[in-house]
This record gives sequence, structure tokens and C-alpha cells, in this order.
Amino acid sequence: MKTTETLSRFIAEYPAGTVPDAVRRHAISGLVNWAGCTLGGSHHPAVERALTAFRPFMGQPQASLLGRPERTDALHAALLNGIASHVLDFDDTHLATLVHPSGPVLSALLAYAQFQRMSGADFVDAMAIGIEVECRIAMGICPAHYDIGWHVTGTVGGFGAAAAVARAMGLDVERTAWALGIAATQAAGLREMFGTMCKSLHPGRAAQSGLNAALMAQAGYTSSTRAIEAPRGFANVVSSAPHLEDTVLDLGLRWEVLANSFKPYACGVVIHPIIDACIALHRKRLFDIEDIENIHFDTHPLVLELTGKTEPRTGLEGKFSVFHSAAIALIEGRNAYEHYSDAAVNEPSVVSLRKRVTVTTVPGIRENETRVTVKLRDGRQFTHHVEYALGSLQRPMSEADISRKFLDLAKGALPLPTAEAALQACWNVLEMEDAGALAGLMEKR
Amino acid sequence: MKTTETLSRFIAEYPAGTVPDAVRRHAISGLVNWAGCTLGGSHHPAVERALTAFRPFMGQPQASLLGRPERTDALHAALLNGIASHVLDFDDTHLATLVHPSGPVLSALLAYAQFQRMSGADFVDAMAIGIEVECRIAMGICPAHYDIGWHVTGTVGGFGAAAAVARAMGLDVERTAWALGIAATQAAGLREMFGTMCKSLHPGRAAQSGLNAALMAQAGYTSSTRAIEAPRGFANVVSSAPHLEDTVLDLGLRWEVLANSFKPYACGVVIHPIIDACIALHRKRLFDIEDIENIHFDTHPLVLELTGKTEPRTGLEGKFSVFHSAAIALIEGRNAYEHYSDAAVNEPSVVSLRKRVTVTTVPGIRENETRVTVKLRDGRQFTHHVEYALGSLQRPMSEADISRKFLDLAKGALPLPTAEAALQACWNVLEMEDAGALAGLMEKR
Repeated sequence: MKTTETLSRFIAEYPAGTVPDAVRRHAISGLVNWAGCTLGGSHHPAVERALTAFRPFMGQPQASLLGRPERTDALHAALLNGIASHVLDFDDTHLATLVHPSGPVLSALLAYAQFQRMSGADFVDAMAIGIEVECRIAMGICPAHYDIGWHVTGTVGGFGAAAAVARAMGLDVERTAWALGIAATQAAGLREMFGTMCKSLHPGRAAQSGLNAALMAQAGYTSSTRAIEAPRGFANVVSSAPHLEDTVLDLGLRWEVLANSFKPYACGVVIHPIIDACIALHRKRLFDIEDIENIHFDTHPLVLELTGKTEPRTGLEGKFSVFHSAAIALIEGRNAYEHYSDAAVNEPSVVSLRKRVTVTTVPGIRENETRVTVKLRDGRQFTHHVEYALGSLQRPMSEADISRKFLDLAKGALPLPTAEAALQACWNVLEMEDAGALAGLMEKR
Repeated sequence: MKTTETLSRFIAEYPAGTVPDAVRRHAISGLVNWAGCTLGGSHHPAVERALTAFRPFMGQPQASLLGRPERTDALHAALLNGIASHVLDFDDTHLATLVHPSGPVLSALLAYAQFQRMSGADFVDAMAIGIEVECRIAMGICPAHYDIGWHVTGTVGGFGAAAAVARAMGLDVERTAWALGIAATQAAGLREMFGTMCKSLHPGRAAQSGLNAALMAQAGYTSSTRAIEAPRGFANVVSSAPHLEDTVLDLGLRWEVLANSFKPYACGVVIHPIIDACIALHRKRLFDIEDIENIHFDTHPLVLELTGKTEPRTGLEGKFSVFHSAAIALIEGRNAYEHYSDAAVNEPSVVSLRKRVTVTTVPGIRENETRVTVKLRDGRQFTHHVEYALGSLQRPMSEADISRKFLDLAKGALPLPTAEAALQACWNVLEMEDAGALAGLMEKR
């Protein structure tokens, strides 16, 4: 098994300009989605506090913090944009592994692109290759890895960031392997942190660790060239059941990038079919909220396991409450990230309705499916079936959906004309001579 | 089990100025030993290459790199001094867990002390408390943790650094718990990296992660307050057999700091009794090297398991070769870190002698013991028994030994008068009004 070498050869030697068009296009959707999420999270208290902590230690203002006026050195930009990208829990998801791949990769790569000029075409190649490597390493260690308690985005994120930057640098195969090794030995992130600001630290720190891994490898800092597969290497240490043959199977022929999905709603994906159902019921205008006696959902077991909080007190806890999410979607007829503020979670009409939401696990219901039954006080009943949630691979968001999501997320950070220009530039990144200029377009001036 | 809270209370509330004198004195020996190792490693290629990698991204020159002319921001100083402190494999060892405790703690604390003034007394309290917390967390997860493949200095080092800096900052119990949580979720380091530059990255990155954890917690960045003991917290994720009751047993009453040991020789501790034996034989002047037919050692099984390299090609591999270490100690009558250069390992007379070294595992021989038999070509035999290796808890290095080690290590980095003045200042740190000034004394001017 030569997993590290095989991946390194792919990163270093995959021919430039030959990433399939569909893969590039999907990666660019990921760029738009990431940029929107990062802009939306750019003023979250987690970002403000991290910036306060690090401000005295930052270097030259060489890279942008999206949606903010400050510039920092590229390593801190990778860290802070990485935190911002995940803090709304609205970023992309590789459903087979639950990795959120773009946060680590793009936070590192875009910061590096502002430090070292690269074309849009090279940027997209590096992004696609970084995400591919990240998801494939996750595939070789999950689900045991996640079950043990690792937040896989934190642990494999550094590999993705290192791979993307190593590719952009043009490192040779040996130095690319060192970069993966340096990333491996910094890989971290515990699921115990869910519900605290540290969850968003994971992609931020992974972006920074991956960028520093590539920089150190470039400077000749040595590492194991068998970091992933060795007996005491990454996969065996962090997984009780690694299966690294899946990591390299059809590498460069079949692209996991295409299995990356985008969330229409700013909460755990298992709630998404339920939100779809509530929005559909709202639009039918069949009843008033106060007439509802009970709303009942048939769901997959993961819904209650991951999002079973009945009495959320903060916005962050609201993301892990199917009860809150259902109630507010039924009232508002939509789902937006501001629905997970502390105020929204404590709004009396929402609290009242969420007490009338019940959820039952039903065998045979998929994760991206639900059946809802609304019972009114007068005895009438309505039902609705969501076969596939919006944002699932079977029913993906369109590019227009993703553009709307970007503009919605950008609105608190950038004036609309600035946001629209940046959105256009992201979609057209392949034509740019200097991909790093994208970041400058998303600074707050 | 409230491990995180108990440790946080100890860090935040242990009364100032009441650390027992013997503990303080032992911690100060650790400071001298750490400073010597860091000076000795300050020009190693690992440090040079890391500095090359990070130079474009560094902040204000607010902290010193020991033995070097450059200053960097405190976070990079913690990282780079941490790398330098471990790169000669000559730093301290908490034998019960194999943690090398001072590298992460002092690299972070001294850099922070240059950023935020603190007295020598407060510095020593913070150092002792940081090392105590670090070793105790290791005690709660080892040996299973190390056996899985984790380099425990990398994983628990960040807790030690975070604890020391949080103490120095005067954080309250809740923020101290956040600092430990932020350190927990950055904890990393694989044993697969042994023999590469990444081994030294572990204490460096731990120092930097621990410092950033304390800075983030101070700024209000939230984390779990049960990061160590929660079902998906640190101990359960990184150890198959945690026993956290040992982490808090007699906390503040019995000090693990006192079980920290210092190495007289720049290689794995399991080789130390063998080097003692070779130095003793050399001093007896009973025979010439060329007359030796065979040198045979009776040893503990760990000697061959950890240091069984018969044909080392590099200095770094030489540290993991009992054969090289025995040969050169017998020839030179001493052991110094320059004996682990590439040149020393490939010196023909050393190569010739190491081929005549044999090692057998003998039941009942302790790790810090050996019996040696030298057979000469003329048939004569000599034997020697080392009951306890120098540097073991039963036969510790004296303060004079540690001072000599410091001066030997400092000689490549600082002029002798500068080194002597710095050494004096380290021993007298308790009287300093500004402990950070210590670092300035060890800059190369």
C-alpha cells in the first residue's frame, strides 16, 4: 500500500488543464458557496474574538479577510476565513464522509494566491485536486473515524489544504509527500466541540496547518513519505477500521468533487427534508399557525440523534434542534441563517409552535426523505411527502440557487453592487490572470 | 468525572507563591536544561528551514529565537524555539509517560513573557503548573495512547503550554477550561514521524497551539468545558484505555514535576546505561579499541525495540542505534550531541567498532541498567555493571552537571561570557522582575 505516494503523484503530476469540465464547474460552485458562507460568517463573534486574540501577532497585510476591512498575513487569513466559512454551519458537505471540504482548501489556497500570483485555471485545478484528496482520505478512514469522535473536517482538512497549495507551488512528488506528512502530524479536531466556537476553529486551523505544511515542505522540512498508510501513520492511529484501497480507487478517473453538495439551509443536513416539507406546507396556505394542534414527522433515526434538542436556548443550539427548525420554517415559509440567532430561538411564537412538533423514527425512511402530518384543532389533517431534500445529490441546488444564497449571505458584509461583481468574478474565475484578486473584490472598503 | 474543571481550578486558583521550594528548584533545572537544548538546536537545518518557510508571514519582532539574531512574533517564537528544543533529542523526559514536558511549556511561556511582562516568581509558578498539568493528562491516557502511535509530547504538550500561559494571564476557571479545550481540539503528533524533522515539529506546534489556545480563551472564544473527559472528548478519542482518576489524584499535593528527568546524553534514554558503561570502560584504560573482538551488552527488551538500527546512515538515525552510541562512547570516553552528526555516524573507526557490538535481551534487567562484557582478541575479558544510568531518578544529574550541559550546548550559538551570564540568570530567575528578559540574554547579537 503506497497511499501517500499515489496521492502525491496525483497532486504533483496530474496534467494541467485536464480536469474535466464538469469537475471544474462543480468546484467553482463550491468556490461561490464557500465565499458566500465566509462573507456571511465574517462578523460572527467567533471571528471577532479570534481576530482580537491574534491581532498583536499578525504579519504583513498580504491577504484579505472576506467581508472585512482588515488584511493579515496569509497564515492568519487562512485561519480566520476558515473559521468564518464554517461558523454558520452552511458550507458544503461531502455526504459519504460528512467532510465540509471547501473551508480548509479554499481558505488556504486563496490566501496563498494573494501571496504568490497564480492564474484562475491553475487555481481551479489546485482547488479540485485539494478537495479530491481531502475527500478520498476521509473515505479511507470513515465511518470508524467519525464514530470514534473525530471531526473529520478538522482532521482531513489539512491534507486538502496542503494538497491544493503544494499543487499551486508545483512541488515535486517527494516534497508533496512531505507536505501531506506535515499535515498528517498536525491533524486534529474533536466532535466534543460541536455547539461551541471550536467547531469552526477546525476548518480554520486545518487551512492554516495545510498551508504551513506546504510552505515547510517547500523549504525542505522533511517528513515521513508514508504518513498515511504506515503502521503508526495517520489512518491506523485515527481509525479503528481504515480501508485505504478506497482512497486511491480510480483516482483521477472518478472525481469525488462531484459528490460534494451544497446546503440550502443553515443547519444540519438531516433536518433539510423537514424544512422542505414545512416550506411546502406554508406555501399551500391551508391553515393558520395558531390552528395547529400537532405537526408530526416520520424520519430517519439520525434526525433525533444529531438534532434532537427540544429546548434550544442559543442560536447555535437551534441548529441542532429539528423542533426549532421545523417551527420557524413553517412560520416564515423559508429558512435563512438569521433564523439561528439567539433572538429567533427564543421568539415566543416559535417556542410555542416547536412544542407542538413531534418526530418519530420510521424504518425505511432515508436520511434525505420525510413524511409530515399536520393535525389542526378542528380535526382536519394534511400530509406532505418530501422524497429528496433540496441540496441532496438527487436534487441539487442549481447555480442560480447558489448565486441567490451567496447574495443573501453577502448582504450583511458588502454593498449589493460589490457583492454582485464578486459573484460574477467567482463564476468567471477560469478566465482570471490573477486568481488572488478575487479576495480583494470581497474586502469591505 | 470533572477532569477539565478540576485541572482548570488548579491552574487558576492554586495560591501564588506556594509551589513547594523543591518543585520550583526542579522546574528551574528544567528551564536551564530547556534553554541549553534550544541553544544547541538553534542552528539545526530543521530550524533554518522552518524559519525560511515562515519568514514572509511573521509579525512584529516581539520575542527572541534563542541563540539566533532574528526576533519574531510570540506565536512563531513559540513554534521555532519549540522545534529547536527537541531537535537534538536531548530535552527532558517524564519517564512514566515519555512526555518531554518543557519544550511545549517553556517555548510558549517565555515567548509570552516577552509580550506581556511577568515576574520571575510568577513565571516559575506558571512553568511548574503547566508541566504538572501536561504530565498528569499524559498519565491519564498512557500507555495505550503512546502504543496506538501518538507522540505524546505533541498531543499533551498543547495542554501544558495553554495551562502555563492561562495561569500567567490570570484567566478565571471557565476561560482556563476553554483554553484547555482549545488545546485539546488542536492536539496532534504521530510516532510515524520519528526519524524525520517532524518529530521536533510536535513540541513546536504544541507550544504554538497552547499559546494560541490561551490567547483565544482570553478573548472569549468558547470551547467545551469537558474537553478531556467527555464521551467524545480528548481522552476517549486518543486512548483505548483512559484512566483519568490518575490525572487528578493528589493534584497540588504530589508533584509530577519532581519526576521529570534530564538526559546527560543526546539520544534515547534506553541507551544511557550502555553509554555509562562505555565511558566507565574507556576511563579504566584497560585495552586499545583495535584489540576488541566483541562488546556484549545484557539489556532490557526496549533497547533493541527502540534503538536497534544496526546500520545508521544519518546522525538522526544514529540516535536510534545502540550500536553507534556504544561504539562512539567507548572510543571517545564521553557522549556529546556532535556524536550524532552525519559525519560521526559514517566515521570508519566508529563503523568498524559498531559491527563488533552485540546486544541480548535478558529477563530481569531494568531499562536503566546494563551489564557489559568486552572480549579481546587475546582472550582476555572485562565486565562492568551499571546499576542505574546517569540521569535516572535514582541517579539524577546534579545542578552542576546541568550547568555543564548548558554551556556545552550553548557554545555553538553564544560567546562563552554571554552563555555564562544567561546561565546565571536562569538559575536566579525567581529574583527577576521581568522574566521575559531571560530570552533577550540568549539572543545572538
